[in-house]
Amino acid sequence: MSRDAWSGKDVLSILDFSRQDLEQLFAVADDFVERPDSVEKSLSDRIVATAFFEPSTRTRLSFSTAAIKLGAKVIDLSPEASSVMKGESLPDTIRMLESYSDLIVMRHPSEGAALLASEVGRVPIVNGGDGSQHHPSQAMLDLFTIKRLKGRIDGLRYAVLGDVRYARSATSFLYGLSKYSPRVVYLVSPEGLRIKSEVKATLDGFNLETQQVEDIEKVLDKVDVVYMTRIQKERFPDPNEYERVKGSYKITKSTLANAKDAIVMHPLPRTGELAYDVDSLPNAAYMEQARMGVPVRMALLHLVLGDRKR
Amino acid sequence: MSRDAWSGKDVLSILDFSRQDLEQLFAVADDFVERPDSVEKSLSDRIVATAFFEPSTRTRLSFSTAAIKLGAKVIDLSPEASSVMKGESLPDTIRMLESYSDLIVMRHPSEGAALLASEVGRVPIVNGGDGSQHHPSQAMLDLFTIKRLKGRIDGLRYAVLGDVRYARSATSFLYGLSKYSPRVVYLVSPEGLRIKSEVKATLDGFNLETQQVEDIEKVLDKVDVVYMTRIQKERFPDPNEYERVKGSYKITKSTLANAKDAIVMHPLPRTGELAYDVDSLPNAAYMEQARMGVPVRMALLHLVLGDRKR
Amino acid sequence: MSRDAWSGKDVLSILDFSRQDLEQLFAVADDFVERPDSVEKSLSDRIVATAFFEPSTRTRLSFSTAAIKLGAKVIDLSPEASSVMKGESLPDTIRMLESYSDLIVMRHPSEGAALLASEVGRVPIVNGGDGSQHHPSQAMLDLFTIKRLKGRIDGLRYAVLGDVRYARSATSFLYGLSKYSPRVVYLVSPEGLRIKSEVKATLDGFNLETQQVEDIEKVLDKVDVVYMTRIQKERFPDPNEYERVKGSYKITKSTLANAKDAIVMHPLPRTGELAYDVDSLPNAAYMEQARMGVPVRMALLHLVLGDRKR
Repeated sequence: MSRDAWSGKDVLSILDFSRQDLEQLFAVADDFVERPDSVEKSLSDRIVATAFFEPSTRTRLSFSTAAIKLGAKVIDLSPEASSVMKGESLPDTIRMLESYSDLIVMRHPSEGAALLASEVGRVPIVNGGDGSQHHPSQAMLDLFTIKRLKGRIDGLRYAVLGDVRYARSATSFLYGLSKYSPRVVYLVSPEGLRIKSEVKATLDGFNLETQQVEDIEKVLDKVDVVYMTRIQKERFPDPNEYERVKGSYKITKSTLANAKDAIVMHPLPRTGELAYDVDSLPNAAYMEQARMGVPVRMALLHLVLGDRKR
Repeated sequence: MSRDAWSGKDVLSILDFSRQDLEQLFAVADDFVERPDSVEKSLSDRIVATAFFEPSTRTRLSFSTAAIKLGAKVIDLSPEASSVMKGESLPDTIRMLESYSDLIVMRHPSEGAALLASEVGRVPIVNGGDGSQHHPSQAMLDLFTIKRLKGRIDGLRYAVLGDVRYARSATSFLYGLSKYSPRVVYLVSPEGLRIKSEVKATLDGFNLETQQVEDIEKVLDKVDVVYMTRIQKERFPDPNEYERVKGSYKITKSTLANAKDAIVMHPLPRTGELAYDVDSLPNAAYMEQARMGVPVRMALLHLVLGDRKR
Repeated sequence: MSRDAWSGKDVLSILDFSRQDLEQLFAVADDFVERPDSVEKSLSDRIVATAFFEPSTRTRLSFSTAAIKLGAKVIDLSPEASSVMKGESLPDTIRMLESYSDLIVMRHPSEGAALLASEVGRVPIVNGGDGSQHHPSQAMLDLFTIKRLKGRIDGLRYAVLGDVRYARSATSFLYGLSKYSPRVVYLVSPEGLRIKSEVKATLDGFNLETQQVEDIEKVLDKVDVVYMTRIQKERFPDPNEYERVKGSYKITKSTLANAKDAIVMHPLPRTGELAYDVDSLPNAAYMEQARMGVPVRMALLHLVLGDRKR
């Protein structure tokens, strides 16, 4: 299988990868999960820089762990990034980091920041989330988790719940689904958090049809996967609107009573929209999802930066 | 000697370890001190996570150093822990970290936080301090230092000075002493900082008798070990009370004039209660004590996580 | 060639090193640049501590990267250093760090902090900048960059532009030049930012003559090297004075129109005094300068701490 799609490339959006590319990633990740003792140090003598201009514990630490497990060293700009670096232009910061490292994993609040970085930098840029649309490695691990738990991604029924407007994990997940053939995709979100028209247009262009529904109760017994997101206060222009909607889309043990087949996914952290009493149900897939962060990011780093074919 | 007491176990409190267990730890630590060049990389390909929800330079850095010296890699949640993570439940954070690591060293302001973490987690939890009672690795290195400097722990005369109520290092040290047979243990503290009744009851249960005294001057020439603690402002319910007592229990070169045999210990950092003119006296043991942090924590990590018997 | 000037030594000021010492450093750095694949892990099993009591992304990360590339491990006090450690004396902090590490790279706002640390510590101290005069590794990489780009340091014409009073990089650069024989050194700075008399006296003592000029335009076509510095607001006693002078010494594409031969250097980050339209000119040397940070710091660490002769 060709590694041309990955080797030395930037990873800015899951839209830039074909279904075949993703399947290649999943095969490597699967191998890392199933045979952890046979992992080669394919990144030894490589340095991975993490630069998080917005806090992110899971993404930063799981990329760091993934890099370490492949033998790379990690340098971290993040503490400064959130304060000191604000006076410097992003291109200057990226040029500095590429003097020190072989690959940069970055997160940034602004849409297009990773693209800008990739235009400046000579080393591969991995987008650990920017703006409200792109978080490709999250979408990759989400799809991988579904494939492992349900055996496939095609033909399933999905509900994406909560903030489908501002949550980059939700948008990226939908972009990822557009590479596959779901049976149906319900979007369940309050009026102020519905999908952006340009995102909808992009999905239409990939022939991914979505159906807007008002009430999660109406579709919970009709789906295989519930993909939840945190409703993030900081993305709301109006805090009153946030207060009004935040409780509306909560999943608890009782709401899942008739949803035997649905696995519940959530990129975490959760802040109330996903009750702790769900943790012990067989529906709960979010801990397994979190665990898949490391092998999927290992596979990504290996394919982009690993020296030899696997 | 059996490693059952240590291998794969949580290290939550020094009370959970027997005298024999501690002696086993000290033997390994002694070996690390005496033969630094023969240290095996018994933790290679292991990842240790540090998660400090309360700042701690010495404990965090000495555990990191210990892990590194044994060949492990370290990932650190700490910068985020003190700010970003406040919205997430401790169990969710621990479940995340155990996806990434083989052992978690944590510090937390709340009593029982490490125990809660150990109930959630599948990887060993090492308590780097929680609440006001438990800081087991500190007590272990304190006892180890005494053993090296005085040749024994039994039969010596001890004074624990300062904050015996809120300082977890003092309480843990007393818990550690309860595994041995000191000749006498004086507690020297102002009224508002005296030992908690439940701690006293625990010590009584282990047959460790303590004597409350008001004035350090009265016992300084009668002890072998003075164990000082910082009087920490943040543990006082009333700041006026703090101002009143903070200077009362200060050790200087002149207060030590008649205390030729006493070694002075302090977990550091100091904030005025231990004068700099003590540094040049033979009594000063706190720098040696600080240096023992790395070998004792190496021994702890090695016994809990090391692959092979030593 | 002797390594006595470097092996095990503190690196506090470039003034402490002879021209021959610097040439030795440059030879090693040159080798690291030209033959990156043949770099030996001369610091394996060594631990380098970074302790930045003042933020510095470039210096901290490039020293970390340099240490890693030589096989060392890095522990970092920096996040705490800027907040938590303020209550502890510098000597106590240094004594702690030397228990954990083989070499300490530190930055501190106070003049003489690195010297104080070196008097306390038994491990080598590398000054990553203290006060307004000393930042030796910056000056070393600056000179090295000039040597690579211009083939020599002697006989060239220099202009040092901007803050010649408070910017430690500018002062250290002049101290470095004093080991060589420039043809002329112009200092171009507004009245409030002129060279301190004691710095001038030191340069005079090394027979480095400088000429104060008012206007960069008058000398731009007469120099080979323009060394710029950021005009740092925090170093001004009076903010009004800062506002008055900050724009006066800006370099743009148009100001360089008649300066074909001059390379433009800047320690970065820039904050307006160096226009982005300069980046594409052949004059721009500051990105190459930034890239030389890692090999020069590798050479420094290797000479101070490396086990074997190179």
